[in-house]
Amino acid sequence: MKTRLIPALIFFLFISTASISQNAAQDSTMLKKLYTTALSDGKAYDWLDYLSNQIGGRLSGSFEAERAVKYTEAELKELGLDKVWLQPVMVPKWTRGFKEYAYIESPSGEKTVTNILALGGSVPTPNLGIKAEVVEVHNFEELASLGRQKIEGKIVFFNRPMQPDLIHTGHAYGGASNQRYSGAAEATKYGAIGVLVRSLSLKNDSAPHTGAMSYGDTPESKRIPAAAISTKDADYLSGLLKLEPQLQFYFKQNCKIWDDVLSYNVIGEITGTTYPDKYMVVGGHLDSWDVGDGAHDDGAGVTQSMEVLRLFKKLNYKPKHSIRVVLFMNEENGLRGGLKYAEEAKRKNETHVFALESDSGGFTPRGFSLETDDANLAQIRSWAPLFEPYLIHLFDEGYSGADIRPMKGNINVLAGLQPDSQRYFDIHHSANDTFEQINKRELELGAATMASLMYLMDTYGAK
Amino acid sequence: MKTRLIPALIFFLFISTASISQNAAQDSTMLKKLYTTALSDGKAYDWLDYLSNQIGGRLSGSFEAERAVKYTEAELKELGLDKVWLQPVMVPKWTRGFKEYAYIESPSGEKTVTNILALGGSVPTPNLGIKAEVVEVHNFEELASLGRQKIEGKIVFFNRPMQPDLIHTGHAYGGASNQRYSGAAEATKYGAIGVLVRSLSLKNDSAPHTGAMSYGDTPESKRIPAAAISTKDADYLSGLLKLEPQLQFYFKQNCKIWDDVLSYNVIGEITGTTYPDKYMVVGGHLDSWDVGDGAHDDGAGVTQSMEVLRLFKKLNYKPKHSIRVVLFMNEENGLRGGLKYAEEAKRKNETHVFALESDSGGFTPRGFSLETDDANLAQIRSWAPLFEPYLIHLFDEGYSGADIRPMKGNINVLAGLQPDSQRYFDIHHSANDTFEQINKRELELGAATMASLMYLMDTYGAK
Repeated sequence: MKTRLIPALIFFLFISTASISQNAAQDSTMLKKLYTTALSDGKAYDWLDYLSNQIGGRLSGSFEAERAVKYTEAELKELGLDKVWLQPVMVPKWTRGFKEYAYIESPSGEKTVTNILALGGSVPTPNLGIKAEVVEVHNFEELASLGRQKIEGKIVFFNRPMQPDLIHTGHAYGGASNQRYSGAAEATKYGAIGVLVRSLSLKNDSAPHTGAMSYGDTPESKRIPAAAISTKDADYLSGLLKLEPQLQFYFKQNCKIWDDVLSYNVIGEITGTTYPDKYMVVGGHLDSWDVGDGAHDDGAGVTQSMEVLRLFKKLNYKPKHSIRVVLFMNEENGLRGGLKYAEEAKRKNETHVFALESDSGGFTPRGFSLETDDANLAQIRSWAPLFEPYLIHLFDEGYSGADIRPMKGNINVLAGLQPDSQRYFDIHHSANDTFEQINKRELELGAATMASLMYLMDTYGAK
Repeated sequence: MKTRLIPALIFFLFISTASISQNAAQDSTMLKKLYTTALSDGKAYDWLDYLSNQIGGRLSGSFEAERAVKYTEAELKELGLDKVWLQPVMVPKWTRGFKEYAYIESPSGEKTVTNILALGGSVPTPNLGIKAEVVEVHNFEELASLGRQKIEGKIVFFNRPMQPDLIHTGHAYGGASNQRYSGAAEATKYGAIGVLVRSLSLKNDSAPHTGAMSYGDTPESKRIPAAAISTKDADYLSGLLKLEPQLQFYFKQNCKIWDDVLSYNVIGEITGTTYPDKYMVVGGHLDSWDVGDGAHDDGAGVTQSMEVLRLFKKLNYKPKHSIRVVLFMNEENGLRGGLKYAEEAKRKNETHVFALESDSGGFTPRGFSLETDDANLAQIRSWAPLFEPYLIHLFDEGYSGADIRPMKGNINVLAGLQPDSQRYFDIHHSANDTFEQINKRELELGAATMASLMYLMDTYGAK
């Protein structure tokens, strides 16, 4: 038996090794084609130029957001996909208004004008604005320890900087963002009349950065206005407070919360040849903040995702699974698009095996952040050598993407593209998130990296 | 014997493992300190601000280059190093002049003004400029095949683009740069009267990029003027030539080659505690092109190298080897500083074991490019896990740096910092190489990465 087994084993090993190396060679050729096409004949950059410069900032419920829906739907139809459609979703509508204005007033009456941006979702100030003394705090514990006696009637100034010594700037963002998201709700508990937040940026400049905030369960009548000031102004205000604790801060903003309005996720599909009923999703979010033009957040992810399907069509690759590009609406201030897509997938009993999101800027890709089990993690990590020529080296376990996470529990693998993170928060949610900050090659490398993972997931399937 | 050996072996393994992990813990702590200090209390960015904005472009032999020597010498003296000195070196002096002007003239006399930059080292045109028909070629073989009959009396236009599908943009640069460096010398052989070169950039824009060129052994009387045009203008001219092959190109430049002048390498040293006579060098080049302010090429490398020694002083790290920062003069158009340093090291019989250069821009560091033997390569690669938290993953064999390579053959390890390469050639040698293109954190991460390798080389020595 033994002697007969050995030749069989050798034969088996031979076949298996041969087929592995044949597959590896095929995969390597396909990745090369994807990267070469994206870099020498890509479309993402032109799409992003249009989205950024001809449409611009596209907050949910705005005219620009609706133009972005129509534009991307039309462009997807041009690609000759099997299906392109709009998925209706009700989204919140918040508008900034046009009267943001602020200054620091010294006890002797000297005024220093300061840039502010109302936080997304904030209530307006009264028409004439508010003016009050400022209490600087760095976290909610410090706020609580000061208590109502020190806070009542004041403006609370949250000034905890992002930690500069963290290598992933996303971790530094995560460590500082509760001030912006929940600062107003917390400060209200102690009778504050307004909130200022240090911008979530690692750059020392004069640009304020907006972003979503929530009043939690604060009753409507008790909600206080909240605005961001720049890192430079935050340092200035903090220094001045040490000299003149009695100084006052004035700000005025006439933002408004409207009734929800109808909008859409934009979806395109190449129907699978072998498993038409198993879905793989690639996407980003179509909405952006109203300041800047949303080129990095998340015009980049939108156009990279569209490029994945364009590359497949261009290279005449016919996927086994049905591959969908989903351009999610309302990530920034509601996540309604992501929630709606997951809800509809569940309602229709659609089997989703893989979703990949790009929502960390259009910078040089470094790898992926994965939410999955050990078997899938091992399979994906086994592809690392294929990615090496493209300097893709991160296959980390971690947060994938806001829009695809609502599918968690009903999907095998969630992945987020990990671009180089150093420059992202310098521009994120500010007037500096513009097309000029995009490097064409970096954007294209990201698209090719996404297409490569999608190709491999389609070829080998999820575990 | 057998039974007695095993406990001994276990004991040995235990000791050896314990000491390895103790070392690894120490090293890991030191790297953490280096990165944390560079990112939260760094000096490179402020130095670079001064060098770029208060001094500016600093071509060898210029007033700005001499100011850069004085400034960096003074700043190194502030650090409390053991020695700071200037190493004299004669450098070439070439000046651009102020009359660069060019246009395309159609057969019907229509003129389209075009940006040009004389190549460094080019002769001027005659005072009134030159005007001639244009012959577009893509390589020297094509030039030779056209021959004197087609070339004589014409302007040769080298228009081979950098290859967009190469992932390392340095490889794409290498594949196109002979047009700039030797284009004039080659075209002269066939009687051309001038040379235009497509800028060595992967970006489609209107900025011409200069850079060094050489006439080789072309006699002085036969040297023809050479200039760069932007990638956008190159595409435009190429398109127009297909429609109107008889069009003419006019250009005028009054650049000048002067006698060599005295300049300096700027050197600072921390003398080693254990091996004061063994040297390790970290450096970049102090000169830059005259357009832009040389922030990335190579202000970044200069200030990162200074930062390495500042970090060691600040953390009170006393190196075993003598560690020198060398700010080389004249990398761009002569390499005289690098040659002089190597020559003097040899003349004085100084033992150099390691040199590290940063001259590929101040972008996010990805790793190192190493010129050494297998034993050193293996040692350096064994440190990869220490670098992993900082996303440093490349330990490639390859070109180190122009200024340190003259030491090759007399040194154990040559290393070049490898930053992300995607944006570098967009700005390289052009008016767009300015401080605004620098990201503070990326610059600092590079400095910390260099300091980390220097620390490890100092701790474990070269093989």
